[in-house]
Amino acid sequence: MYDIAIIGAGPAGLSAAINCKIRNKNVVIFGGAIESTDLLKASHMDNYLGFPDSTGIVLQEKFLQHVAKFSIEIKKEKILAIYDYGDQFQLTTKEGEYISRGLIIATGIPKTKTVEGERELLGKGVGYCATCDGPLYKGKIVAIVADTEEGEEECEFLSELCSKVYYIPKYKQEIEFKSDNIEILYEKVERVIGEKKVEALKLETRTLELDGVFFLKKNVPPSQLITDLRIENKFIGVDRNMATNIAGIFAAGDCTGKPFQVAKAVGEGTVAGLSCVSYIDKLKKSN
Amino acid sequence: MYDIAIIGAGPAGLSAAINCKIRNKNVVIFGGAIESTDLLKASHMDNYLGFPDSTGIVLQEKFLQHVAKFSIEIKKEKILAIYDYGDQFQLTTKEGEYISRGLIIATGIPKTKTVEGERELLGKGVGYCATCDGPLYKGKIVAIVADTEEGEEECEFLSELCSKVYYIPKYKQEIEFKSDNIEILYEKVERVIGEKKVEALKLETRTLELDGVFFLKKNVPPSQLITDLRIENKFIGVDRNMATNIAGIFAAGDCTGKPFQVAKAVGEGTVAGLSCVSYIDKLKKSN
Repeated sequence: MYDIAIIGAGPAGLSAAINCKIRNKNVVIFGGAIESTDLLKASHMDNYLGFPDSTGIVLQEKFLQHVAKFSIEIKKEKILAIYDYGDQFQLTTKEGEYISRGLIIATGIPKTKTVEGERELLGKGVGYCATCDGPLYKGKIVAIVADTEEGEEECEFLSELCSKVYYIPKYKQEIEFKSDNIEILYEKVERVIGEKKVEALKLETRTLELDGVFFLKKNVPPSQLITDLRIENKFIGVDRNMATNIAGIFAAGDCTGKPFQVAKAVGEGTVAGLSCVSYIDKLKKSN
Repeated sequence: MYDIAIIGAGPAGLSAAINCKIRNKNVVIFGGAIESTDLLKASHMDNYLGFPDSTGIVLQEKFLQHVAKFSIEIKKEKILAIYDYGDQFQLTTKEGEYISRGLIIATGIPKTKTVEGERELLGKGVGYCATCDGPLYKGKIVAIVADTEEGEEECEFLSELCSKVYYIPKYKQEIEFKSDNIEILYEKVERVIGEKKVEALKLETRTLELDGVFFLKKNVPPSQLITDLRIENKFIGVDRNMATNIAGIFAAGDCTGKPFQVAKAVGEGTVAGLSCVSYIDKLKKSN
């Protein structure tokens, strides 16, 4: 078990990590996309105090060295699901499952689009990880909306459990499945329909009655993985302590809104880190 | 006229300054107490991302070099009064008067105590600069509560204008005045009395009926200089853009609350700077 899991290895996540580690917390960073952070694209940076005339690459290197000095673990794994168990969180990746007491989201500018009803019905029939949630749909009808061919493997897996699987690829390619309860549809997804749980999926020319929909995306922002996380104007809603509306979850950096600046991310990372430390300490005292 | 005046030359003020300057704003920093910022006392600092194993002195030096590179002016003058004229502010120091369109307060941890009624009646009989506001009290009765002997000069000045001046020193010393309308009282000040304006000053053993009270302190936090600035739990109230409740005034760093960390100050300085730039740009467009 970790005290604190940090999702995102950009300036905000790294700044949070060193502050948590200095306060003797057991920290892990999930940073599947360090190589592609926006910071690296900055060819000239002059406004991070203390580092005039710098570049994104130079800063990133200095930041990673700072974190390395504290021997903080960075796992290059993509988070597929997050479960909130009240006083701890479970994070699922393709490689494994991890438990932490507190969570800091520092995943940068949110880039993934959602369709109508997707967010509202998350956890109520909408999911992002077929392997994780598939067993819930035994004998039922589901759809998979796949950004890449990685979805095909998950589709085969679901077809063994479910009575029927609709496969809706968003990539152009000839696809063949062995199972005969899979139907491939090349259509645009318009919205997820349902009140308390998913009832149907509206496509361009037809509507599928079903029990579950999996959106398999290249990147799912963790904000999307957590049911009930408050989003304000596309960004994670936080207070001045970088606390979200969910106890134990904090956020920092570009994912909380503009301005998209390294100094803001580093500052918010520090605040989120210290707030999370304080949350963990209270939690331990009360147990 | 300056576009932006920044009060405070610690990490928050300096970070704000470089961001405003990069956006081509005409900036001035008032930093009377650079020599005594809390940063300098830090013997070991490990949590400002990119600068492991540092000290307060080393960081401060790097920060000042960064600001010097942009040729940003730092005036070592103490702000005595601030007047809000709607779309511009007047700042008064012993040395002169300055006008700016926007204002960023970055003055660090608030350290000055106030007595009951002092803040409520600021600008309604309570003042911090006898030289500035003295002429308003011609022929009237005022009191001076002085932290240091510097108050004696202001007392002599007021005694020439006012019918009566009570001088209440908070330092131990034999004091002599030439004017016979000055009365020295060695008493503790308990509170300022008045509804819409100052009516009396309550001391330990007596109550003085009067028209004005000047508190001459070693340091007056600018937050105290601005009538109507919203204070929350002793700190300046700000939103996520570091805007205060007064249009054109932003705040950053320790003066906005905990945690008292360099990274938070630098991050907030960046946000306050960019928010103030945006405010100025809108102001110029609408004129």
